[in-house]
Amino acid sequence: MTETTTVRDRLDGSARFIYEPVLDGLDRVIGNLGDLAENSGVPRDMVSHVVEGGGKLVRPTITLLAGALRQGEEERIVKMATAVELLHIASLIHDDTVDHSEKRRGRATVSRLWGDDMAVLLGDYVFAASATFVCDTGNIRVVRRFAETIMELARGELTERVSKHDWSQTSADYERRIYDKTASLICTAAESGGVLSGAPEEETQALRSFGYNVGMAFQIVDDVLDFTSSEEELGKPVGNDLLQGTLTLPALLFAGSHPDEAVVRRLRDGSREESDLTTMVEFIRNSSAIDETMAQLEGYRNAARAAVATLPDARARQSLDALVDYLAQRRN
Amino acid sequence: MTETTTVRDRLDGSARFIYEPVLDGLDRVIGNLGDLAENSGVPRDMVSHVVEGGGKLVRPTITLLAGALRQGEEERIVKMATAVELLHIASLIHDDTVDHSEKRRGRATVSRLWGDDMAVLLGDYVFAASATFVCDTGNIRVVRRFAETIMELARGELTERVSKHDWSQTSADYERRIYDKTASLICTAAESGGVLSGAPEEETQALRSFGYNVGMAFQIVDDVLDFTSSEEELGKPVGNDLLQGTLTLPALLFAGSHPDEAVVRRLRDGSREESDLTTMVEFIRNSSAIDETMAQLEGYRNAARAAVATLPDARARQSLDALVDYLAQRRN
Repeated sequence: MTETTTVRDRLDGSARFIYEPVLDGLDRVIGNLGDLAENSGVPRDMVSHVVEGGGKLVRPTITLLAGALRQGEEERIVKMATAVELLHIASLIHDDTVDHSEKRRGRATVSRLWGDDMAVLLGDYVFAASATFVCDTGNIRVVRRFAETIMELARGELTERVSKHDWSQTSADYERRIYDKTASLICTAAESGGVLSGAPEEETQALRSFGYNVGMAFQIVDDVLDFTSSEEELGKPVGNDLLQGTLTLPALLFAGSHPDEAVVRRLRDGSREESDLTTMVEFIRNSSAIDETMAQLEGYRNAARAAVATLPDARARQSLDALVDYLAQRRN
Repeated sequence: MTETTTVRDRLDGSARFIYEPVLDGLDRVIGNLGDLAENSGVPRDMVSHVVEGGGKLVRPTITLLAGALRQGEEERIVKMATAVELLHIASLIHDDTVDHSEKRRGRATVSRLWGDDMAVLLGDYVFAASATFVCDTGNIRVVRRFAETIMELARGELTERVSKHDWSQTSADYERRIYDKTASLICTAAESGGVLSGAPEEETQALRSFGYNVGMAFQIVDDVLDFTSSEEELGKPVGNDLLQGTLTLPALLFAGSHPDEAVVRRLRDGSREESDLTTMVEFIRNSSAIDETMAQLEGYRNAARAAVATLPDARARQSLDALVDYLAQRRN
């Protein structure tokens, strides 16, 4: 009898089907994360806190599933999956720090517990630790892709900040930003599973396309829910993104199709008045911009499924197909 | 006529001899840094500000010199040198942020100009950019060593913070910390030049030893000067490290050899009184702990020179030899 929680214990029925083919690999990923806390040379409680955050391990699961299309859980695919999760953790540490968030997954954030300065340095440490796991794969292509992904994550966060309240940005700017911020890492998670399992290039590109499209859809779902959900479900005000100045697809589509609406004019002229922003949120909620956004979301979902359909007919493929709905379904 | 400053223009006589064999390579490094500002996709002025900081480019110079022992400035050695400088820049951005520094090399810091949050994200971006340059070398050994170096840099800063005012730390703890914080990157700068120029393993290890020892000496010089220099020269109070709680070798040696001194007892018992700290600074300044520290410094300098002496007899070797004094000579 041990107190260690395996991934199995965390899963309910619907997720179980998706994770099933790679449960052993995920336990090995969790083991790697635990080892990092033990042997890091930095305060153990800090590292433990972040690697035992209890997330859903979606990104490493994607890497393991992509790798499992061709073979079992080879060590280097487990290393890559560990790297992918660590990179996600590192970026959350810095995001929570710069966003001054107090909680993450129901627990206090690193910056809340140990201060912003320690959070910056711990995030750096975890970024670098993730890179050492990628190096363990011995594959320079995935190492390079991984480094680019870190650049893209940072660029996405930077761009989101500098483009606040900037109504001159286009849907294309939005797409680039959510690729950087969200889709890039999911794309890398999927692609690397293909590269490391020796998949032919066509299959690796299909995995990349799956990751790209499911990642874009995942972020768009979030951005739509910010308008269509309730304050109770969101745990923050409806339209919070817009209230904070972050312009997502529904807002950009509405502004584009209502150039003469008074509130749109005022916002374009630089207004950051709360009354204008709350009016805009209400307008968007009740506009066709939501449906148009959902139509784009459906496009990404279809593209993800189409990519999956070209993959080898393995049990892991069924999991990847089920992941499209699991990650990118409108949840209300 | 162009306004671009080449490295040549920045050098005075003594440095000129050291940099001479790799001036063209350094210009190419500067070119790479400039390209990053042009093509980054993040605000150009932010990237320009950090890559045009006007440092002495010591670390890339070491990589280029190490590589020049065997061959000319091959493209991948220039890429590696660029990565080394970018990593140094990234770590300075985060250090200045967590230290709340207002100036760096006479110019406002990123966090001062654009805020701490942007500085965290820009630092992440530059860390990742440095990693992409290492990947361009195509050599997994240097990529891995580079990732470990980022971990060590972050661990060094973390440890320095958590060990403030901790009088139970030993000289060995101090050595580990300054290796992480300072020597690791210089060591990597030298070693990677050997690996990428195809040096035999023995020569690469000698370069590593040179980098390690010169890096340790470089930091110890700084730590001694903090006690022996004047406020005018330092631009901060004499003994500032100790006043801030950072225990360096002179302080640890003095405390170790004066266990019964009243102020040492009070500090060990947890005093952080300014009067105790200033008394301690005065005691250390006038004690043999300074000479003992200088003796250890001399040991590192000698070890660095001994390592250089085993290298191939090339012009670049003379530069590496001269670098020992240039970087690690007591400057007052």
